[in-house]
Amino acid sequence: MAVMDADASAALARLIRSVRVAALGTLRQGAPQVSMVAFLPEADFGAFCLRVSRLAWHTQDMLADPRVSLSIVETDDGRADPQTLARVALRGEALQVASEGEPFERLKAAWLERFPASAVTFALADFGFWRLVPRDARFVAGLGRTYNLSAEALRRAAI
Amino acid sequence: MAVMDADASAALARLIRSVRVAALGTLRQGAPQVSMVAFLPEADFGAFCLRVSRLAWHTQDMLADPRVSLSIVETDDGRADPQTLARVALRGEALQVASEGEPFERLKAAWLERFPASAVTFALADFGFWRLVPRDARFVAGLGRTYNLSAEALRRAAI
Repeated sequence: MAVMDADASAALARLIRSVRVAALGTLRQGAPQVSMVAFLPEADFGAFCLRVSRLAWHTQDMLADPRVSLSIVETDDGRADPQTLARVALRGEALQVASEGEPFERLKAAWLERFPASAVTFALADFGFWRLVPRDARFVAGLGRTYNLSAEALRRAAI
Repeated sequence: MAVMDADASAALARLIRSVRVAALGTLRQGAPQVSMVAFLPEADFGAFCLRVSRLAWHTQDMLADPRVSLSIVETDDGRADPQTLARVALRGEALQVASEGEPFERLKAAWLERFPASAVTFALADFGFWRLVPRDARFVAGLGRTYNLSAEALRRAAI
């Protein structure tokens, strides 16, 4: 397993902190289902937060089976070869966050700072936060530069 | 199930034809796995083509279980609310394409036109084409405008 140098680590942190939407993979009747989600990484990359409606397919999927994957891809800038776009895919577990208390209020404030247009969802009872806790991750820094990362190695990139 | 009008249908066709990379959902040891892939839609949206290495996780996954999901998301343009980005997610089956014959040559030409930098992969024995054949699709044209589409309805958008 290749170990990230400081440049790769910084590139990973930049990718995770700059991109706003990700592809969430869930299990739906045992088959893969991918959908777009807005996400917010926790400061130490120990979890990736989503705010989703209970009516959405992906939420129903996570309630039925917490195993998820989340893929974060550098925004396509129209470069000659899109295969060189940086991307990271996490695998882990989805956990619901209680919609009250201090952790919720902190997350709400951070979420609204990043996604001000989502303020309306805080008046809707079907919306809630989830934390995706990575077990491991796979970072493709560019063509042929792939790193398999433990959750701990991922957190080190946040520093 | 809402029926797409001409505007929604045109927006779906534009989305599928303009975006170059998608999120591929596969099953890996029974859990969801998402990865980035370059893709090329067939002209009638009857299948979505990938060119992948046999060494890649997603290829191993598709060899083990052909059930896939493919999510195509409008490129984030930095708008206020990323939840309004248009996206479509297909569910279907992945089939390998033989690396010889007339269908292969036509696909190769179309692929190279869209992804000229991938020419090098045609000298590598581990790369091959796959066709993802949709069973159905879910098109989110924007906030609150969601269409569940049969494979046939998806093909009608290609016209």
